[in-house]
Amino acid sequence: MNVDLAAGDDAAIDLTIAELDRRDPLAALREQFELPVGVIYLDGNSLGALARPVAERVRSVLTREWGHDLIGAWVSAGWIDLPRRVGAKIAPLVGAAPDEVVVADSTSVNLFKCILAAADLNRPRTIILTERGEFPTDVYVSEGVAQATDGRLRQRLCEPAALAASIDRDTAAVVLSHVHYRSARVRDMAALTARAHAAGALTIWDLSHSAGALRVDLNAAGADFAVGCGYKYLNGGPGAPAFLFAARCHHAAMRSPLTGWLGHAAPFAFEDGYRPADGVGRFICGTPGVLATSALEASLDLLRGLDVAAIERKGRELGQLFIALVERRCAGFGLALASPREPDERGCHVALRHPHGYAIMRALIERGVIGDFRDPDVLRFGFAPLYLRYRDVGDAVAILRDVLASGTWQQPRYAERQSVT
Amino acid sequence: MNVDLAAGDDAAIDLTIAELDRRDPLAALREQFELPVGVIYLDGNSLGALARPVAERVRSVLTREWGHDLIGAWVSAGWIDLPRRVGAKIAPLVGAAPDEVVVADSTSVNLFKCILAAADLNRPRTIILTERGEFPTDVYVSEGVAQATDGRLRQRLCEPAALAASIDRDTAAVVLSHVHYRSARVRDMAALTARAHAAGALTIWDLSHSAGALRVDLNAAGADFAVGCGYKYLNGGPGAPAFLFAARCHHAAMRSPLTGWLGHAAPFAFEDGYRPADGVGRFICGTPGVLATSALEASLDLLRGLDVAAIERKGRELGQLFIALVERRCAGFGLALASPREPDERGCHVALRHPHGYAIMRALIERGVIGDFRDPDVLRFGFAPLYLRYRDVGDAVAILRDVLASGTWQQPRYAERQSVT
Repeated sequence: MNVDLAAGDDAAIDLTIAELDRRDPLAALREQFELPVGVIYLDGNSLGALARPVAERVRSVLTREWGHDLIGAWVSAGWIDLPRRVGAKIAPLVGAAPDEVVVADSTSVNLFKCILAAADLNRPRTIILTERGEFPTDVYVSEGVAQATDGRLRQRLCEPAALAASIDRDTAAVVLSHVHYRSARVRDMAALTARAHAAGALTIWDLSHSAGALRVDLNAAGADFAVGCGYKYLNGGPGAPAFLFAARCHHAAMRSPLTGWLGHAAPFAFEDGYRPADGVGRFICGTPGVLATSALEASLDLLRGLDVAAIERKGRELGQLFIALVERRCAGFGLALASPREPDERGCHVALRHPHGYAIMRALIERGVIGDFRDPDVLRFGFAPLYLRYRDVGDAVAILRDVLASGTWQQPRYAERQSVT
Repeated sequence: MNVDLAAGDDAAIDLTIAELDRRDPLAALREQFELPVGVIYLDGNSLGALARPVAERVRSVLTREWGHDLIGAWVSAGWIDLPRRVGAKIAPLVGAAPDEVVVADSTSVNLFKCILAAADLNRPRTIILTERGEFPTDVYVSEGVAQATDGRLRQRLCEPAALAASIDRDTAAVVLSHVHYRSARVRDMAALTARAHAAGALTIWDLSHSAGALRVDLNAAGADFAVGCGYKYLNGGPGAPAFLFAARCHHAAMRSPLTGWLGHAAPFAFEDGYRPADGVGRFICGTPGVLATSALEASLDLLRGLDVAAIERKGRELGQLFIALVERRCAGFGLALASPREPDERGCHVALRHPHGYAIMRALIERGVIGDFRDPDVLRFGFAPLYLRYRDVGDAVAILRDVLASGTWQQPRYAERQSVT
């Protein structure tokens, strides 16, 4: 796609957008999603939309599985296999083998498991390295690990520019997001993993903002552990369970600190002693959340057989179109690009800065353009490739321009902070 | 209730059962539940049944909240408050104040949090004491704690009879089920907590088999921490999130090892440093599972205003009736009672032993009487007071007698073990 629209007039741009939609190989997928009328949803990077098969599956779990089969559904509906079965469906999206991924718990809990497991494999090293400004949970969980281990493990926060240089012979593990939650900057997973390994450190990748949106190849990069979120680009529903990847080379020696009964080699033997389940299965902890894991499975089934490269390409084209249109139509209103301009360096959302970003976002939301805001001044716009059209981007920018040009965002009510945005 | 039915004839017993159902103050609740035709469900101690308002609530979360409000539902539907709001609804069932309970994660993960938090408050003590034969996760998680702390904390497993005597000056915390998952024996929470405190130890009670079925009074007992399951007598659905109680006296000093972003004092400030949320809120870790926590909330709303003493009374009467009828009608078939006979010493299920218990349970299930089996020889029958009738107990025992007397359970196909029962 040629996203340099500077030369064309408005009519030419509209034609280009129409042509992009016409040629979109993913266009038919939109019909699978429930999207409210009058809304342009640009926050799939925070909470993916509801797909109709997901709603159908949850209804079926309620009435046919739980309601009818009751306890028997653990076998008849395969509930007991959900953590591994759904993990195996995530595997091809992240460059993993089916037996290297499980779905369990939250991203935060899985980070805790991975950090302790990686540090345990890398004794006597003591440092868990993370960047300043990482997604909070990635930072906070390292602090909890330091506390839980009575300071045997310690967190080191480095400046982003100093990351590679900060990996040293004390570094047990490096915790990094593949795509930064704020800027959408993509890290070079292969290069940073190689750098970590050269220094003897292990890597824990947080794929929350890339799984389902970008090509991810954990095994090609030699990644050791990874976690990721089920409710962003995987569309598993609010608070969907997270996933956890452990490279096969670690399966024999790795240990989970969270030794719940379903991570046991024989949970129904009810033994007094813990024996870890095979491979990544030992990172299953308690009883799986069946409603939520089933919802995630149904949304993953929508992705089956799709070309992740095509998904990535569309997401980046939508982002490029957004940037080009904003720069053309919203110039002079004080917006600044806070994401990489180069599509290859960017994930699937675009961040803009504005000193009055909060009020502008609230005014936009009232006009039906749903993005989100991150303190102090960042407006985030996500471009989920499965259910957005190119013309949604054009329409969203037209509304953004209108909000900026008319000054509606200056109404005092938009400036009042709500507790959550 | 007079459960000594030895003197009456069968017609008199049937009249007694009919009278018990007629006088049952909880009888109308059964209509709220979806129970399959032809089934007598005696496994609510393992997975509670589906209540109609739960199914309606989940459908509404899907279509009205997630589907329509999308990311905005975190505020518009109050998703962000779910862990504390639903915790507050559990509080009156367990003798806690509303701000002492949160719903989050699984029982296993919550045990890990509580064990580390209790041991942290009780430095330099090193021992986590548990009984042999406790529910596996209670035992296994202590092992994981020992590993995570590099042996600073250590697990000690004692024989059940030696429990009180095993609490000594090294004991940091005692982990105990209020009701034993196998025998249904109820522990004296107040006496054991007092014994632990006298020795300077803290207590962590697992309420999985009592919350929602028995009167539980954590604060009257002086309990320090507690966890419990959402999917047994609370009917929250398969793998429902668990709850966690922390007594207010510990709120200022206690620390959670699982420092996820939603346990932060200001999650949406996206700070680099962790500051714990107020009180028990710091035990929230990652993003709450909205579908599952909403389901649990709807099932708890069914319990609102009910007298827990009446629930407990009915559950024990159902159990007494079962024992009396089994002893009258199934004598001579090799069944032995494996639960306390005294109702006050028993939770809401009854365990029987039989050398061929597995095959008998499979034959029973095929006849529509759903209980479960625990190795090597225990048949468990749960009597969930919200949706069972006294006549269900009579009918179940009649079928049990028929299975035993006819010898159908001796068919080879019933002896083949399935992976999960």
